[in-house]
Amino acid sequence: MTGPVTRSPRRSDALSRKRIVAAAIEILDLVGEGELTVRGLTAHLATGRGAIYHHVSGKDELLSAAADEVVAQVLTGVPTDQEAEAGVRALALGIFDAIDAHPWVGTQLSREPLQPAVLRIWTSIGTQLQRLGVDGRTLSDAGSALVSYVLGSAAQYVTGPRSASDEAGRQAYLDKLALAWTEHDPDPLVTGAAAQLREHDDRQQFLAGVDIFLAGVRRRDR
Amino acid sequence: MTGPVTRSPRRSDALSRKRIVAAAIEILDLVGEGELTVRGLTAHLATGRGAIYHHVSGKDELLSAAADEVVAQVLTGVPTDQEAEAGVRALALGIFDAIDAHPWVGTQLSREPLQPAVLRIWTSIGTQLQRLGVDGRTLSDAGSALVSYVLGSAAQYVTGPRSASDEAGRQAYLDKLALAWTEHDPDPLVTGAAAQLREHDDRQQFLAGVDIFLAGVRRRDR
Repeated sequence: MTGPVTRSPRRSDALSRKRIVAAAIEILDLVGEGELTVRGLTAHLATGRGAIYHHVSGKDELLSAAADEVVAQVLTGVPTDQEAEAGVRALALGIFDAIDAHPWVGTQLSREPLQPAVLRIWTSIGTQLQRLGVDGRTLSDAGSALVSYVLGSAAQYVTGPRSASDEAGRQAYLDKLALAWTEHDPDPLVTGAAAQLREHDDRQQFLAGVDIFLAGVRRRDR
Repeated sequence: MTGPVTRSPRRSDALSRKRIVAAAIEILDLVGEGELTVRGLTAHLATGRGAIYHHVSGKDELLSAAADEVVAQVLTGVPTDQEAEAGVRALALGIFDAIDAHPWVGTQLSREPLQPAVLRIWTSIGTQLQRLGVDGRTLSDAGSALVSYVLGSAAQYVTGPRSASDEAGRQAYLDKLALAWTEHDPDPLVTGAAAQLREHDDRQQFLAGVDIFLAGVRRRDR
């Protein structure tokens, strides 16, 4: 039998970089990028500025680390024991859904190709492409194309339909876009595309683009 | 025989929207987006604020109209009497080169899917895809994927290697990126990609992505 255990209160735990990044993610999700400040973090974590600056250099690093943490959680959660093409699809959808849940991640990922989250995405997609038998220059080209597509789609989704806060707002946005497209252009191609636009599902359309790329990679390989 | 012709001075020509947009493009090319103001334009065009506001509502509309003008010139210059796949390649390269020459266009295009320049790109690419026999839902999916790829690549090129002002700066950027990639990751995939990164040609890699996509469209079609 052991006696009662005396614990120090949890909040006296050393402030770790991990806790700071977790707090930054909470702030970004709740109130957005404009409200992410070191001052706000010190209040949120009941600590001083020095303790924060001991771990991160400022807002840019916080944003980069927060996006990397979200992306790392997504990629870790994707099963790797499936067929390679299914793996690419699952990775791409995981990133799409993470950006849907955390729109600030989409903005951040399009900011700087040097950041850890982009390398993490590149490595995961590249690993699956390698399993498809792609290598050398083709791996570099195909990996870079797919990463550009995923990040480009995500950024446009975030500034476009996702900027509406609910389904009615999203539909209003798409109707406005479809109207703008057809207003000055009676071209049947534009009219048809506008009709598709009103009804399309962003996630399905994103995945259709991934499938076109995969079909191209398969064909290229032969 | 006619007598000497009396002309009014050129600058008394009515100020047109076209002249305002041309002046905005000059300012954007010379000093960048931060310096584009209605005040700067009035000085550049020797006119008053009222004359500018008669034609455009402000900076957002100026940026959107300036990007549309650059894109329109590019797309008009691409020959349309070639084979459809060559047409898609020429359009994509034209947009890439325009963004290389006017980096602010890359930033602007990724901002808002509602803007005229994006519709213009979509329509041009869609027309060539139609010539490849793509239609309906597939046309909408393939067109949207290709536009996302083109705009996504452009945005990353502008924030990445293109942000360096000369070839030495670009090489330094790529070396730094390659080092960052390999520093914490001895994975042979990462090491190989970093080596490719140091030597790759952005324009060729961009075009390789367009070709993968076109191969996917051909395959999908069958």
